[in-house]
Parts: sequence; C-alpha cells; structure tokens
Amino acid sequence: MSEKQKKPQKLKARLPRGFVDREAADIRAVNEMTAKIREVYERYGFDPVETPLFEYTDALGKFLPDSDRPNEGVFSLQDDDEQWMSLRYDLTAPLARHVAENFNEIQLPYRTYRAGYVFRNEKPGPGRFRQFMQFDADTVGAAGVQADAEMCMMMADTMEALGIKRGDYVIRVNNRKVLDGVLEAIGLGGDDKAGARLTVLRAIDKLDKFGPEGVKLLLGPGRKDESGDFTKGAGLSEEQIEKVLFFVGIQDYAASAGDLAKLVEGTSKGGEGVDELNQIGHLVTSAGYGPERIKIDPSVVRGLEYYTGPVFEAELQFAVTNEKGEKVVFGSVGGGGRYDGLVSRFMGQPVPATGFSIGVSRLMTALKNLGKLGQDDVVAPVLVTVMDGDVESMGRYQRFTQDLRNAGIRAEMYQGNWKKFGNQLKYADRRNAPVAIIQGGDERAEGVVQIKDLIEGKRLSGEIEDNTSWREARVAQVSVPEAELVAKVREILEAQAEDRARAG
Amino acid sequence: MSEKQKKPQKLKARLPRGFVDREAADIRAVNEMTAKIREVYERYGFDPVETPLFEYTDALGKFLPDSDRPNEGVFSLQDDDEQWMSLRYDLTAPLARHVAENFNEIQLPYRTYRAGYVFRNEKPGPGRFRQFMQFDADTVGAAGVQADAEMCMMMADTMEALGIKRGDYVIRVNNRKVLDGVLEAIGLGGDDKAGARLTVLRAIDKLDKFGPEGVKLLLGPGRKDESGDFTKGAGLSEEQIEKVLFFVGIQDYAASAGDLAKLVEGTSKGGEGVDELNQIGHLVTSAGYGPERIKIDPSVVRGLEYYTGPVFEAELQFAVTNEKGEKVVFGSVGGGGRYDGLVSRFMGQPVPATGFSIGVSRLMTALKNLGKLGQDDVVAPVLVTVMDGDVESMGRYQRFTQDLRNAGIRAEMYQGNWKKFGNQLKYADRRNAPVAIIQGGDERAEGVVQIKDLIEGKRLSGEIEDNTSWREARVAQVSVPEAELVAKVREILEAQAEDRARAG
Repeated sequence: MSEKQKKPQKLKARLPRGFVDREAADIRAVNEMTAKIREVYERYGFDPVETPLFEYTDALGKFLPDSDRPNEGVFSLQDDDEQWMSLRYDLTAPLARHVAENFNEIQLPYRTYRAGYVFRNEKPGPGRFRQFMQFDADTVGAAGVQADAEMCMMMADTMEALGIKRGDYVIRVNNRKVLDGVLEAIGLGGDDKAGARLTVLRAIDKLDKFGPEGVKLLLGPGRKDESGDFTKGAGLSEEQIEKVLFFVGIQDYAASAGDLAKLVEGTSKGGEGVDELNQIGHLVTSAGYGPERIKIDPSVVRGLEYYTGPVFEAELQFAVTNEKGEKVVFGSVGGGGRYDGLVSRFMGQPVPATGFSIGVSRLMTALKNLGKLGQDDVVAPVLVTVMDGDVESMGRYQRFTQDLRNAGIRAEMYQGNWKKFGNQLKYADRRNAPVAIIQGGDERAEGVVQIKDLIEGKRLSGEIEDNTSWREARVAQVSVPEAELVAKVREILEAQAEDRARAG
Repeated sequence: MSEKQKKPQKLKARLPRGFVDREAADIRAVNEMTAKIREVYERYGFDPVETPLFEYTDALGKFLPDSDRPNEGVFSLQDDDEQWMSLRYDLTAPLARHVAENFNEIQLPYRTYRAGYVFRNEKPGPGRFRQFMQFDADTVGAAGVQADAEMCMMMADTMEALGIKRGDYVIRVNNRKVLDGVLEAIGLGGDDKAGARLTVLRAIDKLDKFGPEGVKLLLGPGRKDESGDFTKGAGLSEEQIEKVLFFVGIQDYAASAGDLAKLVEGTSKGGEGVDELNQIGHLVTSAGYGPERIKIDPSVVRGLEYYTGPVFEAELQFAVTNEKGEKVVFGSVGGGGRYDGLVSRFMGQPVPATGFSIGVSRLMTALKNLGKLGQDDVVAPVLVTVMDGDVESMGRYQRFTQDLRNAGIRAEMYQGNWKKFGNQLKYADRRNAPVAIIQGGDERAEGVVQIKDLIEGKRLSGEIEDNTSWREARVAQVSVPEAELVAKVREILEAQAEDRARAG
C-alpha cells in the first residue's frame, strides 16, 4: 500500500459506473426519433419549455418507487449556502416547480413538452443506466378527463408517427381512484393504511414480471425469488387477494364494468374512477381510437407515488428475444397519468395536471428491433490525401478540401502523420470514405488531381463478376484538371448514391 | 424558531441559484442555431459522439481558470462506493477520457463534435449561469498545425452559416508556445515558475476588460477595482512588463513577426511557436481565408490551463450596448486550442489533440441582437372551443380536433373549465390562436360549425381603415357543414400566411 502511494499511478480512463458514452449512430437515431415525436406534440398544440438539471431537493419531493428512505434514488449535493440540491429524477416534478414559481405569468391550461436527461442514483445493472433521456408532454390546469384522453391519443399517434404499426402497440389506461376503491373495499382505506396500499400497488405492478401466481405471493405471505431473496408480502387474506386479482385480471373492461362498479360500491372514490374510465373510453372512441389502440386495462399501476387519477402506459406488443433467449413481449416504452397534487404542494390552491413520459433509449431500442430507424446513412467524407508535407503543398490540399466543402460536399484533408501513405488509405477504408483525392509532385506539375472512387474500387476488386449484369463498371480512378475536381467528385458521389438506391 | 418547526411551511417553488428555465422561443432558437452549426461540422467530416454528464473527479483534472483549490469550480459528490464524481465543467476533458478508454477501437485522427450542458460551481451573477450549453468539435490524433488551421476555418464558416457577415466576426489565433517563449525571455521559464506564468497569462487575458493600463497594473504591483477590491499583481519589473505589453499589443502580426522572433530567440519553444503561427497563416490564406476572417493576434490567451500550442477565439466585432449603456464590441462567443497533454494523462504515449468550443447561449444572444434568429414563427394551434360538457358533445369536439390534426393542422380542444366561455376566448387570444371553432346546440342540430378567423377579427376590429388599400377584408366568421371544417380552416390559415408574407 505504501509503495503504491509513493509511485504515482497512471490515471485510469473509465466511465463512472452506470453511465455510457453515445456513438454517432445512436445520436443520429435519437435525433431522428425525437424530431418525429416533437412533430406530433406540436401538432397537438404543445410548446417546448425546459428546466435545469438541478432542483432544490425539497422541491423534487420523494416520489420514486423503491426509495422510501430520504435521498435514496437521487443524486444530491449541498450548495455553498448549505441548501441541498438534487439532479432531477424525472421531468414532472421540475415542471410542477416551474408552474408554481411562474403561476401569475402562465396562461392555463398550460400545454408543454420537453426532452432531457434525468438521473437515478440506483445500483447500475445490464441495461439499467443512471442517466437516461425522457421526452414528456404535460397539460397543467385541466381538471377534466378529456385532458387524459388526449394524452392517450397523442401517444397512439406518436407510436404511429414512429412507424409502429397498429396492433404492435397499445395504450393501456387505468385509474388510481378505482384501484384505491378496490383497496378500500377490502379494508385498506384510510390514511393509516397508506403504507399497506403502496405495498399492494407495487405487488400489482409486478404482474408482467411475475405473473398472477407471483403477485398472489406478494399480496399474501411474500415471495422468494430464484436467488433465494425473500420479498415480504402485503399479508392479505385469501378473500382480499381474490378481489384484487379479479380486478387486475379484467381483460374485457366493458364486460366486467358492472362487476367492477359493484366491487367499489360505497367507497369514497371508486365509483368516480369507474365513471372517469367510462368517459375516457367514450372520448377516444368518438375520436376514432378503438380498443386495439387505447385499451382500458385495470392491471396498469405505474410505480410513481404522485399519481391521483387516470394512469396510462404505452406498451409495445411485438415479441423480442430477451437475454435468456426467451420470446417476450417488448413491453412498456413510456407512461404517465394525472398528478393533481404535485403543483398544489407549492400553492394555496388545487392545480390539476396530467402528463405522459416516453423513455427515449428504450423506445429507440424497440425501433431498432423493428428496423424503423434509418441505419446511419450519413455518407462519410471525401478524403483529400497528403503526399507532400511542405506548407505550400498543404495549402493546396487544404484549398481542394475547402472547394469541396464550399460546394456542400462532406470532405476532410488527412490530419494524421502524412508520411505513411498506407495509413491514409487505411484511414479512408476504416472511415468508409467514398472518394480519395491524390496529388503528388507529377500531378502538381501537370495541374491535375487523381480521384479514386473507393466504393467502386472495392467492388471491382471483389465482386465484379457477380454484378456486371446489372450495371456497367465505373472507372475506379481518374485524373482531372484541378479546376474540374469538384464537378468530377460530385459526379462520382451521385453515381454511388444511385447504386445504393438500386441496391435498396 | 420552535413555532416555525411546528407549523409546516408551504413548500416554496424556486429555481436553484444560478439556474434558469428556458422558454419556447429560446428553445426553438437554440435548435435552429445548433442545426446550422451541426451542418457545418458534418460538412467538415466530423461525426457526433457524446459522453455522460458525470465523470470521475480525477478524470476531469483541475484546469479551470480561477480555481486553484481542489474541487473549486465543479459540482462533486461521492458515489456509494466512495468514489468522487463531478459534473463535467466542459466537453473537452470528458472527450479525452472517452478517447483514452476506447483507444484500441478508435480510428485516429478522430474527428467528432458534441453539444451538451456543462456546469460551473461558481457564484452566480447577472448573465453568469451555473449550467450552460457548449457545442464542441475536436480532432484527436493530429499533431500538425493543419488541424488547428482547419478548426479556425470551420469556425469562420460556422459564423457565416449563422448569418454573421464577414467583417462582423474574426477568428483570432495565438500560440501558447510563443507566450511561453516571451515569458522565458523575461526570466519566467522553468517548472518552478509555473505559478508566476499562470498569473501573467491571466493578467493578459483581462486585456479586453481592463485595457493595457489595467493589465500593466496586474503585471506589476496589482490593481484595485471600482469596488475597492484589490487583485494582487504578478510583481514584474518595468522592463519585463514592457516586453509582455509589446507582445500582446501586436496589431499587425506580419509587420512585427521579425521583432517577435528576436524577442523569443534562444527560448525552448518560442521559435517553434512563431513557425506554427506562420504556417497557420499560410494554410488559411491558401484556402481563401484572409486576415479579415482569421487573424493572428498575440493578445489571445484563453484561460484554461490545458492548452499547449495554438489557441483561438471567435470574436464578434459589432457594437452592442452593455448594461451600463455603453457601446462595446460584443466579444468572444467561443474559443479553443491545442491540448496535447489531456489524453496523454491517461496513456503511456503522447496523443495530440485540438478543438473548438462555442458558447451556445452567448452566441444565441448575439444572433438575437443581429436579428438573425427567426423570432418564434410557429403558428399557435387552432382552438376547438367547448360549448357543452356532456360526454357526447365532448366526443364530437374531440373528433373535430383530431380531424384537424390528422390533416397536419396544429389544433387543440379547450382543456380548462369550459363553463366560462369568456375564458376560452381569452385563452385563444393570449395563446394567439389563429382560428376558433365553435359549435353550440343550434349548430349541432344543423350539423354545422362556426369558424372564427381570430387574426382577421382582430384586424377588423382595430385597423381596417388603415389596411383596406392593400387587400380586401376576409369574412371574420363563417358557418360551414361539419364535413367542410378541415378544408375551410386550411383556407383561412393559408390566407393568414399570405398576409404575414406580404407584411414581411
């Protein structure tokens, strides 16, 4: 140990645990995707607004699932005036702060959207990152369920704008009031049972993961997982469990609505919740959204504690193969719901609100699975090679490069050690450069440049016999006067683009 | 105090100090601007890559100006495994970590760009925020000054792509090696004088702010500012100060190059630096960039400690009025330079690199000053008003709204309390809605809707006498069958767009 301290160790380059770098293809794919989402949100009349990544810790509140202890789940630090700040864990709590702080200037209903990074101070795992992007839309100051219905329709339209076929997605809707009604009906009403209710909700939320048998254990005595870890159950009786499972198991809402109404009869908000669900069903149906797109489904819970009414989830229904090699439904790519209490916390008055949040990375993974995101189709730059390193020659190469750029052609002069020409060609190859420009002393004396069609060159060297039938080979290398450089390069790039189009 | 603790205080909604919310017009302006910057970077052959907002604190290093003490200037926290993490304070140090960590997979020269938020844990002040956006481009693995020259040309092209006229901007170039040579020539060479050198560099960096007289004080005995605060000086002699001021005062580099070479003669790197400046000058001139666009200017320093060779700054030269009402040159909107040591810190080998960083908010402010950013020209949504709140009527209003949206028209149904119709019209007005759709019981019975042209309505009520000469008034309200709703709204929106175009 003391030896280690004496010898200065070389600094180790490493990403912090649970964080990732993003490469070009991913960045371009996310940009393409978010542009399409934005287009839908704008069409629905929403405008952008953004908050910073920090909030005061008290303004964020403690609404994360699985974080009952203070500060669990968020990254926090103390400012130099001793106030605690945290990095936002979602985009909803900061929006609530923004609305409350600017309440007098804001015109309600306030319809906004925002994309941004959020942070969770959790144990990282495979596919579980501590920084990820969400894309949210919210309507603040709208008490009626028509605002919730609109969120669901907007999400359905978003899925289709992204190229997800009808039938491959569904927006599932439930209502926390109905859930609460069911819990009240089985004796879990009242403020003193809030903890017990949360345990039940989180058990239900695991339905996709563990199935009805697993949830039954979580509602009852508890459940031991494959690793032997035991999760304490909610301790409900057989009869209580049966009622909960009836509710979350409802497949055909219309057929079961009567039974459900009976189950929650006499509870403080259960009936109201059923009415709201019926209204949402009517509104979306009138607007042309059938149950294959927006479906009332009592198994939806949503983990966040701040929801007070309708809750929704966007689920992708096509099958993918998981890490264990099993075929599974892709699952949730976003969700949201009504959070009537979140702005009110800051105000002396109720401020109803509802919103939807898309998990950008997860949705991108889904779209890649479907082949719905353009693979990186940006053409690599033309490479102007360097044969002589004196400042006069360099100046000439640099001018060729700028001429190409000024003509709108992606181009670069080789910036590495020019002395090994083989490295330049290797660079062009790895970079997938479409064309290389070469000018040595002889060409310079003649005032010409060599233009190498690297794509055609590759084809000619490997595949020409298979392909001659569908088109004539181009010449893979030509010599042209300097003044014709740009025109010739453009001609070659156009021919390459045609080839790509023909090849599909 | 004890009373306060007993009574739960209402939570106060407030932004953390030094942070801001961003409104629609700003967000759209930044998007427009970054899209143009991206287009130039792509044309130069750069590809996107991004790193997370956190890095391990040791990987970031301590290179911030004005932060000689550890952790000053950055936001840091300890992870649950006791490792210190910090929010990045720029985009360069994280890129260095990324390259070092992925060195075997990366093809050098590695040409990338990225936009993102960075954080400074500083005392906030007017226009001085603790979270702001930078947009960087970097070439890693290129030792020659042709890579630095390219950065300067790319920045010049970026300024012009943003609509900044030639003459309104200049890219200023200097070289740290020449600066070091001058310092060595006045006796400030050697490792033990590193601190003294830094003090001199930071004094020079204040030239724009305090002028030569102020810098003279900072180089000598020290300077007292208007508030009486005293900044300790570098303690140089008259003769030393004179040499430094000669150097930073050079206006015409070509004319002074001989004297400069003499001044740094015999120093370890001064001559090399002068050569590099001459080469950069030649390269950019060959490519068509004269000194009105890229100018060698020995007063450029750049505050960051990690620069090792050429340094650059993009300066906007048009005058603006500052907060004191004085006309001043707008000044720097970005800068950069060569940082050959930053990747090497992680490696057993030298990895040269150079880059440029644009301050996005500051550049946006500049473009707004120039009127070069489209004022928010997104048309507000058509408002479908709600006359009856029963679920049948709501369903019908919702269908109208979806019909408009499906036709690509921005539209929304009123989501507030529909019972006060006046509030709906007030909302439409404040939101600047172009058209309102109205259907009460009578219209419903007839199967028609009222379409109100709100822009024309405003004009008719106020300005018609002035404007009749240049066009006929439209009808401000029409009744059409439900089936013609979309076509009629589109017609009105097109007429409004024509009016806007005519009005310029």
